[in-house]
Amino acid sequence: MKAKYAIGIDVGGTNTKFGVVNRNGEILIQDRIKTNEKENVEGFIEVLAEKLQPMIDQFGGPEAFVGIGMGAPNANYYQGTIEYAANLKWKGIIPMADIMEEKFKIPTKLTNDANAAAVGEMQYGVAKGMKNFITITLGTGVGSGIIIDGNIVLGFNGFAGELGHVIVRNGGRLHKGTGLKGALESYASATGVRDTAIELLQSNPDIPSLLRSFTIDELTSETVFKCAEQGDKLANEVFEFTGKILGEALATFVLFSAPEAIVLFGGLTKAGDLIMKPTRQAMEENLLQVFKNQVKILYSTLNEADAAILGASALVW
Amino acid sequence: MKAKYAIGIDVGGTNTKFGVVNRNGEILIQDRIKTNEKENVEGFIEVLAEKLQPMIDQFGGPEAFVGIGMGAPNANYYQGTIEYAANLKWKGIIPMADIMEEKFKIPTKLTNDANAAAVGEMQYGVAKGMKNFITITLGTGVGSGIIIDGNIVLGFNGFAGELGHVIVRNGGRLHKGTGLKGALESYASATGVRDTAIELLQSNPDIPSLLRSFTIDELTSETVFKCAEQGDKLANEVFEFTGKILGEALATFVLFSAPEAIVLFGGLTKAGDLIMKPTRQAMEENLLQVFKNQVKILYSTLNEADAAILGASALVW
Repeated sequence: MKAKYAIGIDVGGTNTKFGVVNRNGEILIQDRIKTNEKENVEGFIEVLAEKLQPMIDQFGGPEAFVGIGMGAPNANYYQGTIEYAANLKWKGIIPMADIMEEKFKIPTKLTNDANAAAVGEMQYGVAKGMKNFITITLGTGVGSGIIIDGNIVLGFNGFAGELGHVIVRNGGRLHKGTGLKGALESYASATGVRDTAIELLQSNPDIPSLLRSFTIDELTSETVFKCAEQGDKLANEVFEFTGKILGEALATFVLFSAPEAIVLFGGLTKAGDLIMKPTRQAMEENLLQVFKNQVKILYSTLNEADAAILGASALVW
Repeated sequence: MKAKYAIGIDVGGTNTKFGVVNRNGEILIQDRIKTNEKENVEGFIEVLAEKLQPMIDQFGGPEAFVGIGMGAPNANYYQGTIEYAANLKWKGIIPMADIMEEKFKIPTKLTNDANAAAVGEMQYGVAKGMKNFITITLGTGVGSGIIIDGNIVLGFNGFAGELGHVIVRNGGRLHKGTGLKGALESYASATGVRDTAIELLQSNPDIPSLLRSFTIDELTSETVFKCAEQGDKLANEVFEFTGKILGEALATFVLFSAPEAIVLFGGLTKAGDLIMKPTRQAMEENLLQVFKNQVKILYSTLNEADAAILGASALVW
């Protein structure tokens, strides 16, 4: 029997989503588990197997599968490992590809979750047909995947494309996870938007704002978005500031790899023009003439769960 | 007769260097002309032909050559053009590959001068055998060439790798050539070092410095270097500051493509540890854990003229 299917698994900080995908990029069945339900990786594999093994059996057993593709934070494609992932309970270096192959008897490839999303975007999404583009996830954190000449950029150690950690404000906000100061992720993420809102509220005590009626726990990027939509001046400034920083960073990325497009996804993109207008403006202002008005900023059209599963599965074809 | 030779041509802002290269990377003969002696590109070609045509004839005529490789500012590999080069007299878009082929009857490939230098470094220099590295030229300006998986990064429009124009200080120094504010080139270049020295002298009128005995015209990056070597505090601060900015920028580049090494050349590297110590320190401070103490900073061992000619010639093999 010729192997017909791939398994795509997206290991996130909260949920792990997985599904069986055919060669046309259709997800035939999918499910999810909590990533951190168990303390260690052995426990995770057991919980995963309870749901994944029946899927494998249903589609014809291990022989029916070309492979398992897995996207995970801090995953190393070359080594098949997950290394020191800050958002997972598993500490140190986890030989995930080996563990998976032993458990499910299917060859397994691993890559950074953001890289997997970029591959999904190239094969099935808005970047279909493009050879040079960058995907940026603006979620709780900032992830990125870089495609050059149709390939994921992995670099000499497999950890290339960590654009969320690029310094955009020297000596700026401290990132507790990395210890870096002024990194993009500290500004252009849901957490960053919240921090900017708090900073602006505190440094402008005389400016009235709808944001002042929320408790610190209620103040999220969504709250800021809703207030901005209602015309709140400070809330709008939060997105102006966030967009400016993001746009400046995008200009740097363009100068590096000359992408045809930058594909954005993640929660922050829901703010639409509120964030995209200042982003685009700041990007264009910081570009050399040869790049001006040439680089598209696009929104992903795949839903997030699908993109992650499809991207991971695309690793094995 | 099987073609045995390549011609490498490096078009610089001041000089154009060219030579005949064999498959072992030996420059068999070389010469140079002034790039801007004539007003237009036709004049340039005539002056070039006076010296290059005899070389071609000496080695057996056009049939003896695989091709001409040309490195030039603002050169586009895909189009074979030089486009709006700020440092050349030729305005607009110059179809240089076509012009050369018509004149010398030898196939011609063109790329950015910094990309050509990177290829030279990979084939014959300190990056021999490396698949992932970045070259940075710290001269009058800042040029760069990025190699990923053994290939030059060109991007969708052929202009990738313009790292000298990355913004490193928001709202910082105005770059007259590009109109950009706070670009790396405005700091980590010979011009930038001079500007930093002037700024520091003016903002610290009470601090004595050897630099104060020079006229504004005498104040160059070399003057600053000589004073720093003699222990001058302000002159040392100039290199501390320059190195800090350069190192921060290098950290950004590492996060992008995870290079095995960064290869530096150009005049500023002569300042040695004065600039490299703060550069390395700032780079390491701004790197994620997975990159710390992993990326080499190397000096080019090729002399500049050779690297440029060799790199350009390597385009055609």
